[in-house]
Amino acid sequence: MKIAILGGTGEQGPGLALRWAMAGEEVIIGSRSQERAEKVAAELNAELGKPLIRGLENPQAAAAAEIVVLTVPYTAHLSTLESVKAQVQGKIFIDVSVPLDPDNPRRMKMPPAGSATEEAQAFLGSETKVVAAFQNVSSHLLGDAHHAIDCHVLVCGNDVEAKRTVMGLVAKMGLQAYDVGPAESARVVEGLTSLLIRLNIRHKSTSAGIRITGLPQS
Amino acid sequence: MKIAILGGTGEQGPGLALRWAMAGEEVIIGSRSQERAEKVAAELNAELGKPLIRGLENPQAAAAAEIVVLTVPYTAHLSTLESVKAQVQGKIFIDVSVPLDPDNPRRMKMPPAGSATEEAQAFLGSETKVVAAFQNVSSHLLGDAHHAIDCHVLVCGNDVEAKRTVMGLVAKMGLQAYDVGPAESARVVEGLTSLLIRLNIRHKSTSAGIRITGLPQS
Repeated sequence: MKIAILGGTGEQGPGLALRWAMAGEEVIIGSRSQERAEKVAAELNAELGKPLIRGLENPQAAAAAEIVVLTVPYTAHLSTLESVKAQVQGKIFIDVSVPLDPDNPRRMKMPPAGSATEEAQAFLGSETKVVAAFQNVSSHLLGDAHHAIDCHVLVCGNDVEAKRTVMGLVAKMGLQAYDVGPAESARVVEGLTSLLIRLNIRHKSTSAGIRITGLPQS
Repeated sequence: MKIAILGGTGEQGPGLALRWAMAGEEVIIGSRSQERAEKVAAELNAELGKPLIRGLENPQAAAAAEIVVLTVPYTAHLSTLESVKAQVQGKIFIDVSVPLDPDNPRRMKMPPAGSATEEAQAFLGSETKVVAAFQNVSSHLLGDAHHAIDCHVLVCGNDVEAKRTVMGLVAKMGLQAYDVGPAESARVVEGLTSLLIRLNIRHKSTSAGIRITGLPQS
């Protein structure tokens, strides 16, 4: 599938891009700057040893893709949504954003909609299928694309088919996903990130994540 | 330590009581009804093979204990807090409550304070040290007191010393606790319970829990 990763030059983007490209997906890095997008794409292609990843401005990246992923810092959430609203209509939109308090990343500062995911769904409208995923995956581990990651991926959103597609894309990078309900569940999924940041700070780590226990193995 | 488990005749109470009694703590089961408290205490003592657990009405149980644990369904949260407010002053108060939506336990219905834990802290006042714990531990697994549980316990609250004491009590039952910050973090910790209920329903389980991954082993 063609996957655009908007804000793909940031923390989570490169790792997602590498892992999907290695799994055979067609990946486009999006950025506000075409030049920066191309630069990061070139770096990732050097790591891959093959020219698999392109770089484009966010709206062009979104227009060219079937699946659009948003990994910008929360301060750029609404402005990036605005810049691609037309291009993502009818598509699956994976929101990785976490509304951390800009003054203290160990706290959440949730938007009036309840979560970034619900905000994106309300802003983009019902034609676009917003799915939350990857908020709790360490960007440090994600970027080390030749190593497996010891964590699960919580996925939520209001469209069951879209969640199934996203869970398939999670599985393609060797991770197991769990469907934890509608978009509203993102209040917890996004909130968990601030707890993991706290644990990373306290335990001098960059790798905190979560696993679900007690369920039959799938 | 003397530990009172208010609403201890319900879902989480008996398992906590058994595990702490087996670890050598002095446990009192509290209930609105002295008769029901004594009945459950007698059943647990039969399981233990020793008369280690007493049953009392909630206020008497709270008065007799150094640590007070609240495990009532959320509908009884405020009324139980009211009934023991005087008896818990100056003590550590472990709140296990989860504000599930009474119409749909796969959803949260958070109180205006943000979480049950914050509500309890505001209601009981700053002399009482409210700590959230055990919300994400399967009551089914907890009650099977001779088996270890594959999960971690997230602990939060505003008093660092009180959290340390509670984490010690978690360790006494063979479980590992993680301090995930102030009382405000309970919005996520309590909210996780509704996600685990969803996963239990979807995967036909009663044992869902979570583990933190990626941290150095303590």
